[in-house]
Amino acid sequence: MSPLAETQKVEHLAQIRGAAVRINGHVRRTPLLRTDIATGLMVKPESLQRTGSFKARGAFNAVLSLLERDPGVAGVVTHSSGNHGQALACAAKSAGLPATIVVPEGVTPAKVAGIRSFGATVVSDGVNFDNRETIAEEIARTQRLWLVHPYDDWDVVHGAGTVGLEIIEDAPTPGAIVVPVGGGGQISGIALAVSVLSPGTAVIGVEPQGAADAADSLHSGALQSLDADPITLAEGVKSKSIGDRNFDVIVAGGLVRDIVTVSESELTDAVRVAWMRLKLAIEPTAALALAAYLTGKVPAGTAEHPTVLVLSGGNFDPAAVAALLTG
Amino acid sequence: MSPLAETQKVEHLAQIRGAAVRINGHVRRTPLLRTDIATGLMVKPESLQRTGSFKARGAFNAVLSLLERDPGVAGVVTHSSGNHGQALACAAKSAGLPATIVVPEGVTPAKVAGIRSFGATVVSDGVNFDNRETIAEEIARTQRLWLVHPYDDWDVVHGAGTVGLEIIEDAPTPGAIVVPVGGGGQISGIALAVSVLSPGTAVIGVEPQGAADAADSLHSGALQSLDADPITLAEGVKSKSIGDRNFDVIVAGGLVRDIVTVSESELTDAVRVAWMRLKLAIEPTAALALAAYLTGKVPAGTAEHPTVLVLSGGNFDPAAVAALLTG
Repeated sequence: MSPLAETQKVEHLAQIRGAAVRINGHVRRTPLLRTDIATGLMVKPESLQRTGSFKARGAFNAVLSLLERDPGVAGVVTHSSGNHGQALACAAKSAGLPATIVVPEGVTPAKVAGIRSFGATVVSDGVNFDNRETIAEEIARTQRLWLVHPYDDWDVVHGAGTVGLEIIEDAPTPGAIVVPVGGGGQISGIALAVSVLSPGTAVIGVEPQGAADAADSLHSGALQSLDADPITLAEGVKSKSIGDRNFDVIVAGGLVRDIVTVSESELTDAVRVAWMRLKLAIEPTAALALAAYLTGKVPAGTAEHPTVLVLSGGNFDPAAVAALLTG
Repeated sequence: MSPLAETQKVEHLAQIRGAAVRINGHVRRTPLLRTDIATGLMVKPESLQRTGSFKARGAFNAVLSLLERDPGVAGVVTHSSGNHGQALACAAKSAGLPATIVVPEGVTPAKVAGIRSFGATVVSDGVNFDNRETIAEEIARTQRLWLVHPYDDWDVVHGAGTVGLEIIEDAPTPGAIVVPVGGGGQISGIALAVSVLSPGTAVIGVEPQGAADAADSLHSGALQSLDADPITLAEGVKSKSIGDRNFDVIVAGGLVRDIVTVSESELTDAVRVAWMRLKLAIEPTAALALAAYLTGKVPAGTAEHPTVLVLSGGNFDPAAVAALLTG
């Protein structure tokens, strides 16, 4: 276990810059917004990204990189109950490639419909959260499809890292950048970009209290996993552990300053603040960073060195949102 | 009744450019966003503006212009049940001036609380929608305050016109710009800016079917008023007629191509699309332009000449929105 060398960081930054060029025109540059809450606060609403989440960046980078390496590839496959599945389906369709998405039974019909709307094949018979990765690997092997892992994949990480590039272009020296952590794809990409471009910026992760495996990994220095499926409103960060590549950046690499946790009621309050005061219809997972900010668990920021919250997506269930608004 | 001369339009544009300089740093430049709905569509979310609506632009321009003309002014007053009241209270506080806002009895407590949060005096005893303007004028006279009319005021119109400047800077030749119409302040400002900068762009207004006084005025060529308070979800456009200055731009001036109307159910559908697909938590009034777009009442736009929808504000009642999301 050793921190990333400067040469490794520079090489990753070059890959992230390459990703930015590759996905330009396929994904959007999201704005970096000031808010009425505080002058030291800025938000990066990836909810406004194509397909409604930052996942489009990694998915397009993975599909387009794959076609550069192997123009004859038969298609792509992944396991995802949500945003990554939709993003990969969109990227594959855009590139003219077939996509198969392995989805656990019982997932919200709206999400499955979102994946199907891009023409992808959905496999869900007998699929659950424990066997979905194995099933996707089996499909990749037997059908000769390329498996695009939701977070433990360098193309995906480098695609997500373009969020960091854009933040630093718009606000050169943020005091902190705060990012939700599930499998760790987004925060490792952002941390890699920022470690070279603005080494003084603290990259901080946020997890729900009930799914704090990444915080435990960072604080113990060894990869920790959840024993059971976590129960949290933040359904985008339910993975039981971060990936190996993500561990190498976040924990071993020393590029993430801290990972803090928020309670479900802190998260619920933050969702309301996002809708009512930020005027952004984000999904609960995307409110993790705002919850940490509102409860003082991350630095407040200043006008010169703002705290930037990454609002990772906007694909919410309307009934759940309605209940929160009136609750 | 005569179209505005080119010299008049150029003079108004100079005033709008002056407003942009004056309010810079006090209000935000809102982004012009592409969406997942169509390549020919762009949206200008003034819901992300300071105080949650485009009204901050006119209010800051009015207050700062007033202080340039009369540094010894005692304060400002207006009549408004919503966004203009909040915006004027914010601008006055920022300039260190007292503000009095005349608010009809029975208006949503959240809106009154928003106005009070900026330290403004709220007058509401015995105030209704019919007498509020007279009461505000009386307060202005007896207390020597400056009345900042919500729309029939050139400083307010020129402030709102900065929305048009920004759109043309970001998308030089839109096919159409679609704007909600209440008193006509926002559309007349935008039309004045666009008439010189991109004369080929069609500026199109949208009203609820039940509050179609501006459409009637445009189609008849004479100022029309509603007989009674309209019943519509779009509470930001309930004024019974457009102002004199607004008439001179919209109707006599010939700068608005058309004003179309949408039904309440078309508006309801558009609010849901805004939240679920645009991921923007806008107020129902702000969905008027989207409703016109989704029902084919305005041009669809192209990538080169997009249709730009102005989403005017985001100050919604959470219970009402929750009902729409589940309805």
